[in-house]
Amino acid sequence: MYYIGIDIGGMSIKAGLTDEKGNILAKESIVTKPDNPYAETVKDIAALCEKLLASAGIDKSQLKAVGMGIPGTINSKKGIITYSNNIRFENVPIVKEFQKYLDVPTFIGNDANCAALGEVVFGMGKGYKDAIFITLGTGVGSGIILDGKIFEGKDGAGAEAGHIGIRIGGIRCTCGKKGCWESYASASALVKQTKKAMDRHPESLMHKIAEEDGKISGRTAFKAARAGDKAGLYVVNRYVKYVSEGLLSLVNLFRPEILLIGGGVSNEGDYFIKKLQAQVTRYSYGGKRNPYVKVLKASLLNDAGILGAVALCL
Amino acid sequence: MYYIGIDIGGMSIKAGLTDEKGNILAKESIVTKPDNPYAETVKDIAALCEKLLASAGIDKSQLKAVGMGIPGTINSKKGIITYSNNIRFENVPIVKEFQKYLDVPTFIGNDANCAALGEVVFGMGKGYKDAIFITLGTGVGSGIILDGKIFEGKDGAGAEAGHIGIRIGGIRCTCGKKGCWESYASASALVKQTKKAMDRHPESLMHKIAEEDGKISGRTAFKAARAGDKAGLYVVNRYVKYVSEGLLSLVNLFRPEILLIGGGVSNEGDYFIKKLQAQVTRYSYGGKRNPYVKVLKASLLNDAGILGAVALCL
Repeated sequence: MYYIGIDIGGMSIKAGLTDEKGNILAKESIVTKPDNPYAETVKDIAALCEKLLASAGIDKSQLKAVGMGIPGTINSKKGIITYSNNIRFENVPIVKEFQKYLDVPTFIGNDANCAALGEVVFGMGKGYKDAIFITLGTGVGSGIILDGKIFEGKDGAGAEAGHIGIRIGGIRCTCGKKGCWESYASASALVKQTKKAMDRHPESLMHKIAEEDGKISGRTAFKAARAGDKAGLYVVNRYVKYVSEGLLSLVNLFRPEILLIGGGVSNEGDYFIKKLQAQVTRYSYGGKRNPYVKVLKASLLNDAGILGAVALCL
Repeated sequence: MYYIGIDIGGMSIKAGLTDEKGNILAKESIVTKPDNPYAETVKDIAALCEKLLASAGIDKSQLKAVGMGIPGTINSKKGIITYSNNIRFENVPIVKEFQKYLDVPTFIGNDANCAALGEVVFGMGKGYKDAIFITLGTGVGSGIILDGKIFEGKDGAGAEAGHIGIRIGGIRCTCGKKGCWESYASASALVKQTKKAMDRHPESLMHKIAEEDGKISGRTAFKAARAGDKAGLYVVNRYVKYVSEGLLSLVNLFRPEILLIGGGVSNEGDYFIKKLQAQVTRYSYGGKRNPYVKVLKASLLNDAGILGAVALCL
């Protein structure tokens, strides 16, 4: 039997056909049109699924289920998108609408929750029952797996780790609150921190790196730090503290077995992950008396969305 | 059938005999002797139970179970106190030791977790399945109830809400980390904040109130604020923000149905609870789109420990 995982994003909607082991047999994608009414978008997604089955030469009868990972607040039990800012959906009964076109069991979940589940089922988190997945991108997304299942709070309105506070009265966040973790630990925040440090340090290697790369990115400070640049290292170490601060709150509340770090910044690999591990190990509540929490780089990367959505179906 | 709930604290060990509805039929207590070896303390607790049964004229055969609420990290599955700072127990197999004297099913749990469960089973939280209980005392204790059960993280090493960060790089906490919620939102922190404000405001009514009460306490600023004192109101409102900051992180992660506030400060009643409710309602992630989270004063007060321990047995 086969599964389709759909990764609905603000820019594109990706779909992948997989077997039950998470091997991706075919992939397709379309551009997201946030201005379209939801019925149109759902119709497009159904057509995408049909195309995927046709291209792989697989009959509809062999499709066991479809999973969808969607950004925003998702009521997975009721099959409703409560609210998704990126695709401008509000109170959309997406499962019911989708099944008008493709009559298979359909499951939906928040995209970061799906990605977390994908890691536990198919990726680096395999074998662990309690895991927290954090993605450092435009914002800070999070997925919490407790006892092998997605934890999402009442009506899917929890597990928003990007919006735990790390600095009371700090930077104003899009959510209306000040000092959210996301405002300090996202890749976008890192870029802002890098720009500020560059303004203050005209001598820093970061200027040359940014020029060569054609832009200031989340990699600029890391590249400079690795090359021994003082200002770059300062930016990186402070960013590590920001990321760790939220991780530590999560550890002290959930005490998971592993913390999985995804998103663009996680490509800095061991250099970054080891720094996070040191902070988490040093400052977790109860120190060595309490179970060790391992920090790992997430492994599914670009396919995390698709595989996470498939994991929802299993 | 009857139950005994035992509330082990740093100062005293209280025990209560109850029926299955949580009616307390008899209470006894002894002084905690942290310098005694654990075997002695457990023997004393067993004797306390015998005394309780005798005083109520109830035969051992009618005792269905014993529950114990203990401060610190408790491995409830294994029946072991991993670490308790207050009573200086480390790796103590308390259930096994206790059953040498009284051969009944015995359950242990962290005291704040027990109190949370007690509120959901017998108190203000009755009927709710997802609740977070916060006690504002010397520290900030917390108990998290998910789907009607205590959530405590791997080996009971989670649910330490007092040690989520609210101000990165802030006040150094006893746990080794800086800026923990407990350092700002505990009753002890409130007293420190009150003292500082009094130093800065010799004109404040707080001086007169403290003199009349014979001390500066968690009530001083509240009394002054209610009487219209500006400096007192400033202390209270800032303290409300500190408490809310942690509550909001908990809401955004767990999205419980209710937040229960216990500990001495909760005796400020509606005046305090309504201020917390306003902050929680205003700043919870997703605003009105997401389920409303109600803030309530915990109701079991002095008997919370005993009833919480009994709730463990049910």
